[in-house]
Amino acid sequence: MTRPSRGHSKGRFITLEGGEGAGKTTLARTLAARLAGLGLPVLRTREPGGAPGAEILRGLMLQGPVAWDPVAEALLMFAARREHLARTILPALEAGIWVICDRFSDSTLAYQCHGHGLPESVFQGLMGVALGEFRPDATLVLDLPPEQGMARALKRGAPDRFERLGAGFHARVHAAFRSIAEADPTRCVLLDARQPPAPLAEAAFRELASRLPDLPR
Amino acid sequence: MTRPSRGHSKGRFITLEGGEGAGKTTLARTLAARLAGLGLPVLRTREPGGAPGAEILRGLMLQGPVAWDPVAEALLMFAARREHLARTILPALEAGIWVICDRFSDSTLAYQCHGHGLPESVFQGLMGVALGEFRPDATLVLDLPPEQGMARALKRGAPDRFERLGAGFHARVHAAFRSIAEADPTRCVLLDARQPPAPLAEAAFRELASRLPDLPR
Repeated sequence: MTRPSRGHSKGRFITLEGGEGAGKTTLARTLAARLAGLGLPVLRTREPGGAPGAEILRGLMLQGPVAWDPVAEALLMFAARREHLARTILPALEAGIWVICDRFSDSTLAYQCHGHGLPESVFQGLMGVALGEFRPDATLVLDLPPEQGMARALKRGAPDRFERLGAGFHARVHAAFRSIAEADPTRCVLLDARQPPAPLAEAAFRELASRLPDLPR
Repeated sequence: MTRPSRGHSKGRFITLEGGEGAGKTTLARTLAARLAGLGLPVLRTREPGGAPGAEILRGLMLQGPVAWDPVAEALLMFAARREHLARTILPALEAGIWVICDRFSDSTLAYQCHGHGLPESVFQGLMGVALGEFRPDATLVLDLPPEQGMARALKRGAPDRFERLGAGFHARVHAAFRSIAEADPTRCVLLDARQPPAPLAEAAFRELASRLPDLPR
């Protein structure tokens, strides 16, 4: 894997983050359509997953027969992320494609570290191993009170492993996403996800345009 | 996962390392029988694998449908190792069991770094994340010219992914195991694996006894 020369690449890497039911998937779809309507090549992807090997690991983490040791689970998550980066994200960016990704490394920090108590040193070590200096060009953090997000998520059907974790867990994850956004305001923007999808997408697009000067208006 | 207090534990962790066909499996069996004959509780295990989740990952690495990115593969290897450590090795050591393990982290350093060119900084970062300060109590490195080892390995049947890698690769791995043993002579002993199984096992037992004072004679 070689890292792209961002000076030559025209693709941009946009990540969507936030708790369960915050509206990431709907927003990703709307943003992708809007960018495509502006004539940009767009790829929508998600984590964990987004490449054949990463999708296998997603299955092992979310529905697999094993309750993984927390550090082993973090290693698996970053193995999937590295595979996603090497096979999907970097080749797309190098080809000038804009990539919109539903969850990325901020979710690992929020869920595994703040939610489950994985040491942040483990997360930082794995960031260095798997991503080097690579980071998203912009990150939209969807902020929704966790009880509202959980209610939306549960309506979608059977709760998966993350959704069964309880209110205290999701409160910690919610606070973590807010602190991540506050700590890196150049990359991240916190969006009020209580608003309906259309104004939320409008606000998201406006924030992206202010951060990414090569986004056509 | 909590690390064992080695002061209270009576189990010891012995790893066997070396190239393909060096005789690790035969030696592990003989040593296990000998330790058991001395009244010690013994567990034989192997890497990658040795725990349910780790065995799933072994299958993905050795026969899976994906040709993994090298860093992703290293992350998977250490996810399997962490699972093996947390679920199998540490509980056994805490219970006073002597653990004999066919391959451990030295194999990752030899195969992935020296063989495939994975940066050693990635290996060291993952050692810190997955193992902390945990290391084997003793490591037996079986030294065999790679052409002899490959000939033995190929007799066993269809070559797996590692066995198809060619002479130059296995020469680098062979040199790596020698340098690993030389760099850490307190933990490691280099054994001449050209000798027949019985004298090899005798030499291995003698070296273990000199390193592990609680091994009955």
